[in-house]
Amino acid sequence: MTAPTTADLLALDRAAQDLLFRAARTANTFTDEPVTDAQVAAIHDLIRYGPTAYNGQPLRVLLLRSPESRARLLPYVSSSNRAKTASAPLVAVLAADVDFHERLPELYPHRPQARDWLADRAARVEQARFNATLQIGYLIVGVRAAGLAAGPMAGFDTAGVQREFFPDGRHEVLLLLNLGHPGPHTGPTRLPRLATGEVIRTLEG
Amino acid sequence: MTAPTTADLLALDRAAQDLLFRAARTANTFTDEPVTDAQVAAIHDLIRYGPTAYNGQPLRVLLLRSPESRARLLPYVSSSNRAKTASAPLVAVLAADVDFHERLPELYPHRPQARDWLADRAARVEQARFNATLQIGYLIVGVRAAGLAAGPMAGFDTAGVQREFFPDGRHEVLLLLNLGHPGPHTGPTRLPRLATGEVIRTLEG
Repeated sequence: MTAPTTADLLALDRAAQDLLFRAARTANTFTDEPVTDAQVAAIHDLIRYGPTAYNGQPLRVLLLRSPESRARLLPYVSSSNRAKTASAPLVAVLAADVDFHERLPELYPHRPQARDWLADRAARVEQARFNATLQIGYLIVGVRAAGLAAGPMAGFDTAGVQREFFPDGRHEVLLLLNLGHPGPHTGPTRLPRLATGEVIRTLEG
Repeated sequence: MTAPTTADLLALDRAAQDLLFRAARTANTFTDEPVTDAQVAAIHDLIRYGPTAYNGQPLRVLLLRSPESRARLLPYVSSSNRAKTASAPLVAVLAADVDFHERLPELYPHRPQARDWLADRAARVEQARFNATLQIGYLIVGVRAAGLAAGPMAGFDTAGVQREFFPDGRHEVLLLLNLGHPGPHTGPTRLPRLATGEVIRTLEG
């Protein structure tokens, strides 16, 4: 926790600061309480307003709820992530739609030609990955806004998950995300954060 | 704006939902009111708690405040972004520190060997870019939490900006971000967002 003066410089009230950032933790255990489809829809309805280049919104989310769907994922998850992935009420596979540009005439109607600027697939993959990753940042905040804990996991066989769940070749899998009500926290206490002076500097002159 | 029922499913109160997402807009004009160093520090002090892999926190921010520093940026910015970049009270160059792993013994003390897992530079660049981009998502939310408007811009000569401002070769420039109090909005009204059913699906079976 920081001095009140720093928190007071923000327009966001202190309870919301705690909910989204200061008191929020990446969960590694979850209670049995389910995450409903209505909660997921409410989270998306909030974070879909976050900005993306050309308003392209390339993030796509595949929810694994049933034991059968979860069993298809587990072989690709690193051993240290397997128990929490098996026990989380909901697991989301987060991917970028590489062909997001097809929707731009609708999503960016004042410059419909933006679709053609993205005709090159390699450049488009980079755009899709970057903007979907920004949206994952918004999504993690949104999960917390719903009073849930998020458990992002990068330790998995990306190519395997992509083959298993997105065999269409138009998606790039980026991250797995466990969602649920947090159980007792295991593992280290709050890890240290870099000081502002280590992250941000002003160019002199 | 959505039906009250959806917003009411969230733990975050409606005013905060509006501040961060629903009513927030990417600004393309700004008032003359400055953005202070204390405000920037307060934003960082909030969003530094957002999760990153190995708690690596690779995002680095270079602030361009003076007319001289701004003049060095403008030649690299696309013509459509030049006026707002020149007039924003503050411009941030957002980059990933490719050698973020050097700090892991301190930032991830329960597994200090994580530094050695990231010895391969190519894999590390990908990790740095991905996690710094997540942090940019948190940062955009944080700028709004301070009551300011953010103006992310991808339209610039990345290699040129990297040479000009990060000649050390250990940073990857990702995005430019204008910060300030929003002026009158020019350009299109709120652009359409994808429906939840277009973004999120549940795997059957």
